[in-house]
Amino acid sequence: MELLKLRVLRDSVVHNQEMLNVDDFLSHQVDVEFLETLAKEFKRRFEGKRITKILTVEVSGIPIAVMTARQFKVPVVYAKKGKSNFWSQEMYTAKIYSFTRNEDMTLRVPHNYLSEDDNVLIIDDILANGSNAEGLMEICDYASASVAGFGCVLEKGFMTGGRMLRDLGIHVESLCVIDSMGPDGIKFRE
Amino acid sequence: MELLKLRVLRDSVVHNQEMLNVDDFLSHQVDVEFLETLAKEFKRRFEGKRITKILTVEVSGIPIAVMTARQFKVPVVYAKKGKSNFWSQEMYTAKIYSFTRNEDMTLRVPHNYLSEDDNVLIIDDILANGSNAEGLMEICDYASASVAGFGCVLEKGFMTGGRMLRDLGIHVESLCVIDSMGPDGIKFRE
Repeated sequence: MELLKLRVLRDSVVHNQEMLNVDDFLSHQVDVEFLETLAKEFKRRFEGKRITKILTVEVSGIPIAVMTARQFKVPVVYAKKGKSNFWSQEMYTAKIYSFTRNEDMTLRVPHNYLSEDDNVLIIDDILANGSNAEGLMEICDYASASVAGFGCVLEKGFMTGGRMLRDLGIHVESLCVIDSMGPDGIKFRE
Repeated sequence: MELLKLRVLRDSVVHNQEMLNVDDFLSHQVDVEFLETLAKEFKRRFEGKRITKILTVEVSGIPIAVMTARQFKVPVVYAKKGKSNFWSQEMYTAKIYSFTRNEDMTLRVPHNYLSEDDNVLIIDDILANGSNAEGLMEICDYASASVAGFGCVLEKGFMTGGRMLRDLGIHVESLCVIDSMGPDGIKFRE
């Protein structure tokens, strides 16, 4: 999406070759009208799939997931994150490695929020090593729910997440793929 | 709002006289279409105020704040929570006591997200002892931003937050006020 590339160029800060700060419009401060445009694009790209639920992870995935759920007229479920493994038995859990926090975390979703009747679209703000996505797919698997696809606003194309998901046969839609970034600026994939 | 009372009666779980679980439609799993109805009600109740920004706290305030920001066509800013006091100098911070976590936390918002030109509507899912609201007002104060009002989905009328805010002269709108709850059920304020 050209509009998104322009926004990234204008309003993001490149910290280093791996870390990009998009707090000004996507996380922390959220341009809701802009997110509506992105959500409509997800709707278009996953058109025709019978989506029953949007699934994401707290915190920064929530705004774009909520706006996308509005387009599909379905509920959104966000997995909560914690360090403990000791949740009630009523929870589906998956262990992930958090890239930003540099530690292991456990994702959890109550049993009654996902079932075998669900066709889930996973939405996240950023795709890096794919650990959020992997954890959420594991949870869908436990619940016998189908995964209709994975949509993210920004994919770090130089990290492994995108390839891993596509190799698994997942329908991945990234609204913008960054091939490299650094002192010379941001290079987008055409 | 009668619709909200019915939803609380149908889909919430009373844990004890102080704790109500609304995870099934408001937090964790979010009924986005229902939240749109609530957001429109906030728009109606704060009609005529020149709102420039919606402010909330991560995590469970984010969905209703995003939907409300969409109604007002303004950005939403969410304060991040942490235990440390040592954030960069570019942050407005406020110390709060977290009722659910039973510990002190620090709210933080980057300087450039709020200014003296802002007229802020604070939105949260639940109003209990008012500590989130107090922290966010403190941050608005540091930024010399005006507070146009405070809106919450559920107010625990038996706790002190609502009275504290109204005594300060804040325009408070709670879509539903619970006067008591327990084994005999939930009693709403008329």
